Amino acid sequence: MKKPLIVQKFGGTSVGSIERIHTVAEHIIKAKNDGNQVVVVVSAMSGETNRLLGLAQQIDSVPTARELDVLLSAGEQVSMALLAMTLNKLGYSARSLTGAQANIVTDNQHNDATIKMIDTRTITELLAQDHIVVVAGFQGVNENGDITTLGRGGSDTSAVTLAGALKADECQIFTDVDGVYTCDPRVVATAQKLEIVDFPSMEEMARKGAKVLHLPCVQYAWENEVPLRVLSTFDVNAGSLIKGEQCHKAVCGIAIQRDMALITVQHDHFPSLAKQCQMLGVEVWSVIEEAEWTGVIIKRDACAKLALVFNEKIRNSEPVSLLTTVGLLAQELVERSCELLAEQGIEVKSLSVDKQSLMLVMLPQHVDKAANILHEAYITSDELLASHLKHVSLG
Amino acid sequence: MKKPLIVQKFGGTSVGSIERIHTVAEHIIKAKNDGNQVVVVVSAMSGETNRLLGLAQQIDSVPTARELDVLLSAGEQVSMALLAMTLNKLGYSARSLTGAQANIVTDNQHNDATIKMIDTRTITELLAQDHIVVVAGFQGVNENGDITTLGRGGSDTSAVTLAGALKADECQIFTDVDGVYTCDPRVVATAQKLEIVDFPSMEEMARKGAKVLHLPCVQYAWENEVPLRVLSTFDVNAGSLIKGEQCHKAVCGIAIQRDMALITVQHDHFPSLAKQCQMLGVEVWSVIEEAEWTGVIIKRDACAKLALVFNEKIRNSEPVSLLTTVGLLAQELVERSCELLAEQGIEVKSLSVDKQSLMLVMLPQHVDKAANILHEAYITSDELLASHLKHVSLG
Repeated sequence: MKKPLIVQKFGGTSVGSIERIHTVAEHIIKAKNDGNQVVVVVSAMSGETNRLLGLAQQIDSVPTARELDVLLSAGEQVSMALLAMTLNKLGYSARSLTGAQANIVTDNQHNDATIKMIDTRTITELLAQDHIVVVAGFQGVNENGDITTLGRGGSDTSAVTLAGALKADECQIFTDVDGVYTCDPRVVATAQKLEIVDFPSMEEMARKGAKVLHLPCVQYAWENEVPLRVLSTFDVNAGSLIKGEQCHKAVCGIAIQRDMALITVQHDHFPSLAKQCQMLGVEVWSVIEEAEWTGVIIKRDACAKLALVFNEKIRNSEPVSLLTTVGLLAQELVERSCELLAEQGIEVKSLSVDKQSLMLVMLPQHVDKAANILHEAYITSDELLASHLKHVSLG
Repeated sequence: MKKPLIVQKFGGTSVGSIERIHTVAEHIIKAKNDGNQVVVVVSAMSGETNRLLGLAQQIDSVPTARELDVLLSAGEQVSMALLAMTLNKLGYSARSLTGAQANIVTDNQHNDATIKMIDTRTITELLAQDHIVVVAGFQGVNENGDITTLGRGGSDTSAVTLAGALKADECQIFTDVDGVYTCDPRVVATAQKLEIVDFPSMEEMARKGAKVLHLPCVQYAWENEVPLRVLSTFDVNAGSLIKGEQCHKAVCGIAIQRDMALITVQHDHFPSLAKQCQMLGVEVWSVIEEAEWTGVIIKRDACAKLALVFNEKIRNSEPVSLLTTVGLLAQELVERSCELLAEQGIEVKSLSVDKQSLMLVMLPQHVDKAANILHEAYITSDELLASHLKHVSLG
């Protein structure tokens, strides 16, 4: 019988020192001893990418994109070699591969490349010889043989794309939190770890501000039916498994997105605003129609760019934060949510309802309190939710 | 008309900081502006290889050879990228290539690989597009696609082999001294820089202790008719050119080799000693036959190994240094050299004469003084040499 294949990804913090690399090796060895084939994806040691960037910026504030990729990719080359040495020292045969050696072929977009194809033959041959294969995350090679890097969240993308190409049984993202929580535990002390999360809910949480996984990583895993697991390098629990198509909870999580802005214009200026956003590459998170105005939600740091070319027509621009409940109920929660928040003096400036999410727009200073109120009502105290939503069938 | 092609090699000290990389870029730009095609070979920034080795040794005192090569090769990847960025910033288009990207194919001997073949097509294509090509020294790739490193003097080997493969017009080794001297200037203050040195003399000097160039580098350049130039990164003079087959000087240089030992045995034990040396991989620098004994000159740090298996038969083992005059005259200088040294109380314990060299064996504490005496007699004061060697025709 074919052994299960697991892809494990360890970020920069996880391989930040020789001691931590040892801890990482223990996770890998456990998976190997459990009877799995193991492919490991590693980032550069934490701090290393910044050190290399610092050297480059002493030369040029905008270094040549091609050469920046050559430079930064040296970071993972160091961590992958150190990890393979550690595994070998512990008696487990391991081979490291750069992005190029692993045949991770990308487009030509240096510093922000997209994986086009992975020829997995080298990896599967090494697995067949019973090696643990350690692959550099974040990097690939274009069709000219030039080194490329993937941009933000690159190592997660490497891991999940490799898992897809290898038809892995599971892709495990090791990080410094031990799973996906119902809300950011730094904000809501009663936030609970979710044992299992369905893909639609996870995608919506990632899209609306949950930092635990990058949105493209979740989307790729979903499309390619790769079960994803989030777990902590510094812990032994099973983390959270992201799997399946079906959400079974009224509210499974609450996502917080800070540093946004609500830009409003007169109705007849909206088409022109939308066009400017597109031309400037400013992502519109939401469009809100009110009686008096139309508004768009954008990242706050994009405001200045937009104001430069569109200033005279902007009616209002104000900093906001977004609070999004994700789960089966959305439309049904609108009234009760506004009521619960109004009782505590929090004004919902605007809102947007989607099939499985309710996004509330509010002043930045209100969002933490609001998160606690809704978490208490909808997640911690199930009975409260039930009593207020008697008319809703949860299917 | 085809532009001349120059290969320039810069060692770790030359690229040891962003400021120094800038100085290196100026040398390259000068060569480019002089109408040359330029291929540059760089080492890792000084200190970087030791930093990486230190990390590896925290894991394993003898790290996996394959993974050590992956680790160390990241060092040149950093320096080559920084250099290419600097050239680009200064307005000169440059592309960096790893050993693998430059198709420097080696055997499988990790940590001490030998270059088997260089497919120069990638480099010549980039040169044809008017790029400066920056290649990682010290590293290559074996036929499996694994990263290899070349061992000691590796970057010089990379440079001279690339120059040979590209049929370069000159291979310039930039270092921290500004050329080949008649003797080590730290020992002989009156040592003179040689504008030009023939290959046979340079080979003999490198073999007998001159540190400026590694012996295999000189040998490869000679065999492949690549003119070699030694020059300083921190200076603008033309350095020393190594070229041609013919020595024209009675004595062109004096080499010093320290840390050697003279091991003597009874005549009838010599064959067994020679065999032990061979089996242990101990290089025999010279075999000396005296009336009472036969001796071999070996590196001092090999003595312990030899003594372990051959102890009871060793008649004597003593530390010595070697002083070798290189030039047209060798046999003719034996008597006068011993005389000059004896006058100053220095005993020549033994000697060996070759076609173009006279090697004198003496106690380590005598070698610096002896070097000054012979340098004064044979090089600084030509007339002294002439008066004592009236019977010799210098051809």
